[in-house]
Amino acid sequence: MNLSSTERTRLGRKPQRAAEDRAELYAVLDAGLICHLGVVVGDYPRIIPTAYGRDGDTLYVHGSTGSSMLAAANGAQVCVTVTHMDGMVCARSVNNHSMNYRSAVIYGEARVLQDDSERLHALRVITEHLIPGRWAGAREPSRKELAATKVLAVPLDEASVKSRSGPSIDDPADLSLDHWAGVVPIRTVFDPPLSDADVPVPEHIYTLTRHTLSG
Amino acid sequence: MNLSSTERTRLGRKPQRAAEDRAELYAVLDAGLICHLGVVVGDYPRIIPTAYGRDGDTLYVHGSTGSSMLAAANGAQVCVTVTHMDGMVCARSVNNHSMNYRSAVIYGEARVLQDDSERLHALRVITEHLIPGRWAGAREPSRKELAATKVLAVPLDEASVKSRSGPSIDDPADLSLDHWAGVVPIRTVFDPPLSDADVPVPEHIYTLTRHTLSG
Repeated sequence: MNLSSTERTRLGRKPQRAAEDRAELYAVLDAGLICHLGVVVGDYPRIIPTAYGRDGDTLYVHGSTGSSMLAAANGAQVCVTVTHMDGMVCARSVNNHSMNYRSAVIYGEARVLQDDSERLHALRVITEHLIPGRWAGAREPSRKELAATKVLAVPLDEASVKSRSGPSIDDPADLSLDHWAGVVPIRTVFDPPLSDADVPVPEHIYTLTRHTLSG
Repeated sequence: MNLSSTERTRLGRKPQRAAEDRAELYAVLDAGLICHLGVVVGDYPRIIPTAYGRDGDTLYVHGSTGSSMLAAANGAQVCVTVTHMDGMVCARSVNNHSMNYRSAVIYGEARVLQDDSERLHALRVITEHLIPGRWAGAREPSRKELAATKVLAVPLDEASVKSRSGPSIDDPADLSLDHWAGVVPIRTVFDPPLSDADVPVPEHIYTLTRHTLSG
């Protein structure tokens, strides 16, 4: 299934960096830990970093019932952006410096989940997104904890994916310059776990630390 | 100098995670590579990831003159968010899972730089922010390249900084559970450079790869 191409998801700049396949959207989202969620408050935008999870074509974001951000987002148009930095691209000219990256920008109307079972499902999706296997390795939310949690659902109907990869690209006239050019890869990695409990580190945590997020 | 405390930068949730010192704002900004820049377009927010640099109390963001995003931001209220993920915090209960992070949220009116020399200065600030020493290691922008570049300045007058660090925190009643708890640190790292030029890798690139961004 193709990604939508609405006025706001069509890329004005560098359209060659646009992906058209829904699988690429899923890949960018599934590889990330946090998104940046934006809402309009009066006449200004507000952006917060927050954890998320994906189930099919729904993105879930959670927070406290006291969150003014999530309250403002309910029934409103939101923007969710997930970004991976993959490398610093150094050209011989300052002007051709760039970054290797993958990013997804999603537009949609956010909806606060009203139903306890839907909320429980969303929390499971978010938890398993961040740490696969963790849901079974921790105590499930109580009814009271569920009641104190707000979860937003954002449909993945309208989205754009953009990326750059590969080497630096210089103007032909600059190739004879003595300056270095190349790419410095960037990766986000998990380090060995620091235990706060007197039980063995479970397999799902070791699996996580062997996992590289980007690059 | 203290950070401002306006209605939109005062933290409603978890105020104990708020920093009040301007030095902490600088530290979060100086440690980052990209920000998420948000503007309001009609009735919806738009968020893009982009490189930035800081000079004193001014944040610079650049793009092409063709960027509709930067055009929309000129003279408008924008939000700039910089986020570092430092760790996954696993508690014995799903409900007390968290992340260790540092984030800065800046609100202000963006201004497009009109002057060539100011624009050149801003590009130098952005370049040196990303790769210290790089400005001298590459060809400076030509007049034509400068003319094709748009730079936004955002004042750092109104900002909030929020962070979480340290171990997991469980409800006392959960401490006897058999589940593992602890922190999985997250770091963003540079890998060894991949050369596109037949000249030695310069010292400023090696310095970069010895540098850890987060954690």
